[in-house]
Amino acid sequence: MKLTCSRDALLNGINIVSKAVSNRTTLPILECILLKTYDDGFKMTGNDLELGIKTALIDADIEQQGSVALEAKLFSDIIRRVDGETVNIFCGNNNAVVLSCGKSEFKIMGQPGDDFPEIPTVEQSFAYTLKQKDLRNMITETIFSIAIDESKPQLTGELIEIKGTSINIVAVDGYRISYKRATVSEAETPVKVIVPGKTLKEISKILSSDEEDVDLYITDKHILFDLQGNIIVSRLIEGDFIKYDQTFTDEFKTRVIIDRIDIISSLERASLVSRDARKVPVKIDIQKDKMIITSQTEMGTAYEEIKIDAVGDNLKIAFNPKYLIDALRAIEDEVISIQFNTALSPCIIKPEDGDIYKYLVLPLRL
Amino acid sequence: MKLTCSRDALLNGINIVSKAVSNRTTLPILECILLKTYDDGFKMTGNDLELGIKTALIDADIEQQGSVALEAKLFSDIIRRVDGETVNIFCGNNNAVVLSCGKSEFKIMGQPGDDFPEIPTVEQSFAYTLKQKDLRNMITETIFSIAIDESKPQLTGELIEIKGTSINIVAVDGYRISYKRATVSEAETPVKVIVPGKTLKEISKILSSDEEDVDLYITDKHILFDLQGNIIVSRLIEGDFIKYDQTFTDEFKTRVIIDRIDIISSLERASLVSRDARKVPVKIDIQKDKMIITSQTEMGTAYEEIKIDAVGDNLKIAFNPKYLIDALRAIEDEVISIQFNTALSPCIIKPEDGDIYKYLVLPLRL
Repeated sequence: MKLTCSRDALLNGINIVSKAVSNRTTLPILECILLKTYDDGFKMTGNDLELGIKTALIDADIEQQGSVALEAKLFSDIIRRVDGETVNIFCGNNNAVVLSCGKSEFKIMGQPGDDFPEIPTVEQSFAYTLKQKDLRNMITETIFSIAIDESKPQLTGELIEIKGTSINIVAVDGYRISYKRATVSEAETPVKVIVPGKTLKEISKILSSDEEDVDLYITDKHILFDLQGNIIVSRLIEGDFIKYDQTFTDEFKTRVIIDRIDIISSLERASLVSRDARKVPVKIDIQKDKMIITSQTEMGTAYEEIKIDAVGDNLKIAFNPKYLIDALRAIEDEVISIQFNTALSPCIIKPEDGDIYKYLVLPLRL
Repeated sequence: MKLTCSRDALLNGINIVSKAVSNRTTLPILECILLKTYDDGFKMTGNDLELGIKTALIDADIEQQGSVALEAKLFSDIIRRVDGETVNIFCGNNNAVVLSCGKSEFKIMGQPGDDFPEIPTVEQSFAYTLKQKDLRNMITETIFSIAIDESKPQLTGELIEIKGTSINIVAVDGYRISYKRATVSEAETPVKVIVPGKTLKEISKILSSDEEDVDLYITDKHILFDLQGNIIVSRLIEGDFIKYDQTFTDEFKTRVIIDRIDIISSLERASLVSRDARKVPVKIDIQKDKMIITSQTEMGTAYEEIKIDAVGDNLKIAFNPKYLIDALRAIEDEVISIQFNTALSPCIIKPEDGDIYKYLVLPLRL
């Protein structure tokens, strides 16, 4: 294999496929990036067997066809640090690779390209299309509430539901539910799949924040994300997701309209009287025009007062402040609505109008 | 004790004295900040028994005199997070303290102010005065080469030498020497003291980067830094510092004028072929117009070429790249000079002209 390509294009590709490279594995080849030439360029692949990423064709002068797998960290460090516009890559006998750029030359050992595991083939018959930034926001604004505990594997992923022109994502960890919706191209048939949390975290780092589209292809076992020719394939998690819909009741006995930054600041301050920040329960006392947040530990007590607009009953309720803060931080709106029923039933955080996002948090017993 | 003060002034004082607060100690009072009122304000003190810091008087309305010691982290977190211009501090019976600001109120337990250890008294008879930024640069550009190993306690500090209008600082760890000089107000008598590295690291964080002065007062056992009324007192390290002067020979057989960023980049790239970054030895081959840097490990080989101006003999020599990089990163000059004698004798990094800074690094055997 012998090729010459732009350093910027190479580095961009490395940054994309690195998201699927395994960090610690008993199979050293999974710590590699595969380079494989085609007529007018080459593609790179990363694959940790759960998540696989293959770049679109990267322009290059190909002098000699071939493939080789290079240790991802070393390859990426070298290409990031070298100083020059073009990079020459030559793979000789025994997978000995010479990388040269500017006044730098590296000789490193690769592994046979044929030993690198192929990423699964996914039939690309029907695409659901949405904005990359919408998918990115859906992930980053919900992913924090997937379950860490592997005992319910379904909850370590997020539910993606597509119906009509609507796509939504849901994460549930047993203490809270996070939900966010966006618009998708008209769906042929409704789908419901559970995508591993790790996949979504890595994809959210690659998704662009501008107007570009992403195409989703879904089969029984896999989901494929096509980002302008860069292909990401992940396995799906089997089984049924928790039925979350009924828990988002529209009924409430108390509704609070509140400044989002005000309540975040007060919850964070109330959490200070704990060595284990955010693990101290906070008590919330809702009155007509103010919310009083208090906490008490062996370290001391905190008292916070926030101006609000409330309708309905006065209420005293307690929460783990971390769960409220995680949800409130994910939202962008300046003012939000929080609905309550009793001191023992969950609260629901929503926009003042509509329900494009919904967060449910269980209270603690007072 | 009862007082009202500006939150900004309080926070500024906390940030200064926090540098002397102990993180882990068997004496809980050392994890505290002492507040003590005077007629028109109050002072705060931090003291870990090696380093003590007392603020200048902070303006406040004093309703009731007194003193109390507050757990530094909690106190600092609260004052940093509260929202308001003024803070009220009230210490009632049993050292129960109420902090209030804006719509927030905290009750925390303090400890008796009288239990807080006084910082040592240092006679302030003669001051050596220099710019704070000069002292800061002297520290940050040399501190990395103090010894970590406690077996030679003198080398865990830095030597400060004052003679005439000249002040210099020296750090030695057995593999390298770092030296930096600045101008000081005319000294009455020459002094040589060893200041603990920890003291210098903390002070460098407080020293301003503008034109303000710092006054140094030195006794047999202590050094006192007066930063516009904020007083920092540190014990000195006893014993004799290593005689470093003769090692900085002016003679050389090879002298290289080189772009500082070029050689840093090349050394860093040559270090990439090692899992333990910067621990791979690099070989340096000096020719008339170029320096060739190479390294070789089980991971691969690196070859780097840099344009230089050299006078004297060609030379092949090897170094631990970390030691060269540490020194080169501390320098600000674009172009520097490196002097060599033999492959077994140290190199000296200096400005192209003069010797306001000097770094000596021992080579490795090829």
